[in-house]
Amino acid sequence: MPSTINTQVIFRKVPTTYPVKGEHLEVARMPFSPDTIELAPGDFILKNLVLSVDPYMRVRMRIDTNPVKAKSVSDPVPINGVMTGGGIGLVIRSNNERFSVGDYAEGMIGWEEYTVVRSNKADSFQLRNDAKNSGLPLTYYVGVLGMPGITAYIGLLKIGDAKPGETLFITSAAGAVGQLVGQIGKLKGMRVVGSAGDDAKVRFVLEECGYDAAFNYKTRDTSEALTEMCPGGIDVYFENVGGKTLDIVLEHAKNFARIAVCGMVSQYNREKPEGVYNLENVLWKRLRIQGFIFSDHIPEYGAQFQKDVMTWLKEGKIKYKEDVVVGIENAPDAFIGMLKGKNFGKQVVKIADP
Amino acid sequence: MPSTINTQVIFRKVPTTYPVKGEHLEVARMPFSPDTIELAPGDFILKNLVLSVDPYMRVRMRIDTNPVKAKSVSDPVPINGVMTGGGIGLVIRSNNERFSVGDYAEGMIGWEEYTVVRSNKADSFQLRNDAKNSGLPLTYYVGVLGMPGITAYIGLLKIGDAKPGETLFITSAAGAVGQLVGQIGKLKGMRVVGSAGDDAKVRFVLEECGYDAAFNYKTRDTSEALTEMCPGGIDVYFENVGGKTLDIVLEHAKNFARIAVCGMVSQYNREKPEGVYNLENVLWKRLRIQGFIFSDHIPEYGAQFQKDVMTWLKEGKIKYKEDVVVGIENAPDAFIGMLKGKNFGKQVVKIADP
Ligand SMILES: NC(=O)c1ccc[n+]([C@@H]2O[C@H](COP(=O)([O-])OP(=O)(O)OC[C@H]3O[C@@H](n4cnc5c(N)ncnc54)[C@H](OP(=O)(O)O)[C@@H]3O)[C@@H](O)[C@H]2O)c1
Ligand SMILES: NC(=O)c1ccc[n+]([C@@H]2O[C@H](COP(=O)([O-])OP(=O)(O)OC[C@H]3O[C@@H](n4cnc5c(N)ncnc54)[C@H](OP(=O)(O)O)[C@@H]3O)[C@@H](O)[C@H]2O)c1
Repeated sequence: MPSTINTQVIFRKVPTTYPVKGEHLEVARMPFSPDTIELAPGDFILKNLVLSVDPYMRVRMRIDTNPVKAKSVSDPVPINGVMTGGGIGLVIRSNNERFSVGDYAEGMIGWEEYTVVRSNKADSFQLRNDAKNSGLPLTYYVGVLGMPGITAYIGLLKIGDAKPGETLFITSAAGAVGQLVGQIGKLKGMRVVGSAGDDAKVRFVLEECGYDAAFNYKTRDTSEALTEMCPGGIDVYFENVGGKTLDIVLEHAKNFARIAVCGMVSQYNREKPEGVYNLENVLWKRLRIQGFIFSDHIPEYGAQFQKDVMTWLKEGKIKYKEDVVVGIENAPDAFIGMLKGKNFGKQVVKIADP
Repeated sequence: MPSTINTQVIFRKVPTTYPVKGEHLEVARMPFSPDTIELAPGDFILKNLVLSVDPYMRVRMRIDTNPVKAKSVSDPVPINGVMTGGGIGLVIRSNNERFSVGDYAEGMIGWEEYTVVRSNKADSFQLRNDAKNSGLPLTYYVGVLGMPGITAYIGLLKIGDAKPGETLFITSAAGAVGQLVGQIGKLKGMRVVGSAGDDAKVRFVLEECGYDAAFNYKTRDTSEALTEMCPGGIDVYFENVGGKTLDIVLEHAKNFARIAVCGMVSQYNREKPEGVYNLENVLWKRLRIQGFIFSDHIPEYGAQFQKDVMTWLKEGKIKYKEDVVVGIENAPDAFIGMLKGKNFGKQVVKIADP
């Protein structure tokens, strides 16, 4: 392959609130000669095809001042480094025995057209050739069949300990994770209630995903809506947003309710987090609030998840809405838009055709 | 038994901050003729011997505005009703086949010298004749062998999922519950760190209870002390106080730490609770915050708890400090003092000799 250009998105500066394209995230066009790059044993080169953009990436754009660090996705991206994210690429050169030219590889790629995967990172990649002939869009493999998918699955079933007949409340209910949580909840026989920041999203979860009730939290008071839609209280709260909403849910939780803390997207772009005041409910109602990161659960649940979701997709029991933009240079706008709720469905960037 | 006086403590008014004797809690002296009271089948009369005063009683002096009520100890005491609490009495008349004159009965008694137990409440009482000849103070049965005891036991071992080698942090570390949590932690091979609001309490947990480190949170910055005393972070936090302390602990928690929410005493006397800001740690560190009420766990753990703690007491492996006041008329001062940290050890009221 001749010399070309590798368009990349570079992290330039720590934002205090919402990131701004040009200031915090910059699109750079770097010369790239894949044939002349030296590949040590274990290294390989990807031509990237799809990139997932996700809320947690905002958290990696911070300076971590916590005295006891979390060893997780919250590790910061270095200033002037290429942004990273989950994606799938086509192997175009390889010195790694697991990956051959022509293979699809899935893992943490750069926000860029080409990623050189060094041997020390190669282990975290996996072959994804099954995506070639599945009849499903490649983007599904970073969505319903990928990270957001397993997050919804284990978050609801394992961390939330969901049971038939229980009442489930989901925030970001039409999002990459949320839309699947609600549909799995319905499949498991739960009463499902969701909130989203847009009337079209509310219609989507009611009409397409089968939710029992839903509301637009921007035009309706959350506590009032929960009193109406969860009159007996909430058994499982799938927490995607944090802050004030969590505070309200604590008051609407039933005894022994579980709060599966998947995300707190309403807090990621704030200079200071909002206070949560109603935590005494944790005691008197014996609540369990539990945080989780999907990757901890792949060894135990990964195979079962793939099997179940693939079956549900094939049988038409679940739907999956995506919001696809084309071109890596559009990743910053897609990402920043998503943090502001402009995405409708799973936000993905299609970088190239194979 | 001839006519006599039943000294009682009456709940008169909902306090906004700390209760005041005379205003919110009033001592009343009522004529009482045990022999002429009509006893329906199942009723019995107790001459009360010991009463436990506990922080949760402050929570029952509130108006509960929660849209979904907790069915637990947070049920309010009615205005002009007699305050209630765990205690032990001597049966002086009985129309109940489980309880005979001369028996010791344990259950929710009034803050009063004599309690008429009606049949609808009788089931929640249990015989406590084993206390007569155990060689242990009767007060122990509402302390180390009673409610605070099982709270410490299941809170640490079940809810906290404590493991040898882990670091345990306890607030109210010298209190009725706290002093036992730390000692059980040491017996289970943990590194134990505590905080209390008084230098004498700090010396007590270090010198008598075997804690590895402890500090006075009124004279030392909690975050600084935790950095020094839990340099690798906290695995289990036994939460007795809530508010700002919880916020600090969230930053000092390790990945996968457990927070057993036993109480939030720093919040009980506030008009508005303090905000907690660092909840994003729950996500990135995959924390589990779980509230519990001891009574839910008696069916499963009651017998094992009694056996273990009795053994540890007899073998001299644990100590138990009590703060005993004499006379029911002193219950309000003992209770209000305890809410302000004046108690040194388990606060109990000795009402009468058998
Ligand atoms: N724990 C894990 O392993 C894991 C894995 C994946 C994702 N997550 C988390 O799951 C959550 C959802 O992620 P996703 O990938 O499915 O994203 P998403 O829901 O598809 O997109 C983010 C959504 O957040 C909502 N939002 C933005 N600002 C908000 C605010 N201030 N208040 C309330 N909602 C706001 C917007 O929806 P509206 O229009 O409804 O406001 C936006 O569409 C995020 O918190 C993310 O961090 C966690
Ligand atoms: N979940 C359950 O089933 C259950 C059962 C029993 C007790 N509890 C809870 O366990 C906790 C301890 O109860 P206990 O019976 O063992 O009482 P305790 O610790 O013997 O007495 C209460 C102590 O709270 C501390 N305190 C008061 N105000 C405070 C503040 N603003 N900040 C920090 N500490 C403060 C004081 O100690 P310092 O001198 O150290 O400040 C005081 O001595 C309470 O929160 C109680 O509600 C729960």
